[in-house]
Amino acid sequence: MNTGEFDLITHIRARVGQRTDVVLGIGDDAALLQPPAGRQLVITADTLNAGVHFPEATTAHDIGWKALAVNLSDLAAMGAVPAWCTLSLSLPTSDPAWLDGFLDGFLGLAQSHGIALVGGDTTRGPLAIAVTAIGTVEPGRALRRDGACVGDDIWVSGTLGDAAAALHAWPDPSTTLRERLDRPTPRVELGRRLAGIANAALDVSDGLLADLGHLCRASGVGAEVELTQLPASTALATYPLAARIAWQATGGDDYELCFTAPPARRGMLEALGVECDLPLTRIGRIVAGAGVRARDAEGQVWQPARPGYTHF
Amino acid sequence: MNTGEFDLITHIRARVGQRTDVVLGIGDDAALLQPPAGRQLVITADTLNAGVHFPEATTAHDIGWKALAVNLSDLAAMGAVPAWCTLSLSLPTSDPAWLDGFLDGFLGLAQSHGIALVGGDTTRGPLAIAVTAIGTVEPGRALRRDGACVGDDIWVSGTLGDAAAALHAWPDPSTTLRERLDRPTPRVELGRRLAGIANAALDVSDGLLADLGHLCRASGVGAEVELTQLPASTALATYPLAARIAWQATGGDDYELCFTAPPARRGMLEALGVECDLPLTRIGRIVAGAGVRARDAEGQVWQPARPGYTHF
Repeated sequence: MNTGEFDLITHIRARVGQRTDVVLGIGDDAALLQPPAGRQLVITADTLNAGVHFPEATTAHDIGWKALAVNLSDLAAMGAVPAWCTLSLSLPTSDPAWLDGFLDGFLGLAQSHGIALVGGDTTRGPLAIAVTAIGTVEPGRALRRDGACVGDDIWVSGTLGDAAAALHAWPDPSTTLRERLDRPTPRVELGRRLAGIANAALDVSDGLLADLGHLCRASGVGAEVELTQLPASTALATYPLAARIAWQATGGDDYELCFTAPPARRGMLEALGVECDLPLTRIGRIVAGAGVRARDAEGQVWQPARPGYTHF
Repeated sequence: MNTGEFDLITHIRARVGQRTDVVLGIGDDAALLQPPAGRQLVITADTLNAGVHFPEATTAHDIGWKALAVNLSDLAAMGAVPAWCTLSLSLPTSDPAWLDGFLDGFLGLAQSHGIALVGGDTTRGPLAIAVTAIGTVEPGRALRRDGACVGDDIWVSGTLGDAAAALHAWPDPSTTLRERLDRPTPRVELGRRLAGIANAALDVSDGLLADLGHLCRASGVGAEVELTQLPASTALATYPLAARIAWQATGGDDYELCFTAPPARRGMLEALGVECDLPLTRIGRIVAGAGVRARDAEGQVWQPARPGYTHF
């Protein structure tokens, strides 16, 4: 079955949620939005390409979910409240069943975070999903990469390495690991509540050590990480230690938040973890100098076989 | 030569222009923007895929130009002032010379319209360029598709059909036609100045009659178009009449503005065309009913072989 481009757009439009600040949504040359007074905008854009960012066998639902989730994760890492997004969808063919599954995933996640799809386009081409997400934040309260201070604790949310383990076990990972790869949970609530507590933050998409390296460069500091402290899910704990450590430290695709905060805020952060129902784990500290040093159980500096995900 | 993803981002970042309302640009999880007080946001997203939206032999410069131009054209059609954009660039390989050419085109056009590139990503995949562009407009002044009134004149800017003629002559179109296909000029200044004059507007991307059909549906009106009035460039005038008319009426990729306005504003519009140094041509009128009727030199209703561009 094949349907036209304008039918596709009509179909998407009919399923999109509303926000009162969307003056004009899908259907004109562009959308019209009323930004909230006295707030800054936070904007991010991330693309998923078939075979690069997800295995070809990934379901339409999970592709839709993940395409939005990785963008919401960037908003979370800035401490922003999600507001609006655009979707550019390149499809090899027009398949209504695939599109419905995709929209179930994309719009389901959108609804749970109150973000409205306001525009975009559908084109013919190799399967690719480009999303731009916009949120808002109180001026001066955004979580940035460049605020880490010497002496800060380094924290990470949730568990690390599950997505890499799922890819290792592909096409037959356990349900738990597969869900962590295909339907990552953007830590939006945590990010919002870290504003004013954390000195610096980012999301773990390229791999913990690589991402922490970005944070250190932006802040002009170094970092020491205790590999034994990296949080692991019970599903990951069944793997040999060496593989587990590599996935946790360098695997990427985790979409947890890594952030730094002064030791005086440990109590606040422990309470916040309980309130968000999300483990927050101290994994190291910010030091003077540059670069990220990871130490193993014997205190030896650990060298990853590959530092993190890179496209080229 | 091959360079890493972070080098690519660093390279792009070094070439990006600045705006004082960009609080934090490329380099964090997301950009931070200070929206102007008392204005609405206008947001659009359009993607170009290799082999679909441009011939494979198109130069990197022209691909960069066009990827931004089609988005600026959507902002123009809303009467918006361009402000910020994001760029998601999927590349099969990392080629610094190609990237520099692409950035010459993209950032050159960006600079001339004062729009700042504030974020995005570079991924490995089939060549595709997804852009989201954001502008601002005074509340209530946006040009929409749904404001056309019975009795309005229908106007179009510039000339129509050149891009279709260039594709017809591909790979060897004349320089003039090739430039119209590869480096369309978004009518940003015209769009801004039409706010308050035009009742409805859109840009001609799918083909005049198809786009006018969208406008009529949104406004609940019909349209009558005189094919003999469609403006043609001197380059196009060398082609046989039948081909020319088809390209002008249905070819698409023109990125001119089509708009409607009451006859009482003809004088204002003629003056505006002179001030913008851009021909504005009356091509028909809005009528009661529905649908678009195009009449040829004999007054006969003309049926296009294909109504306009569609992806599926």
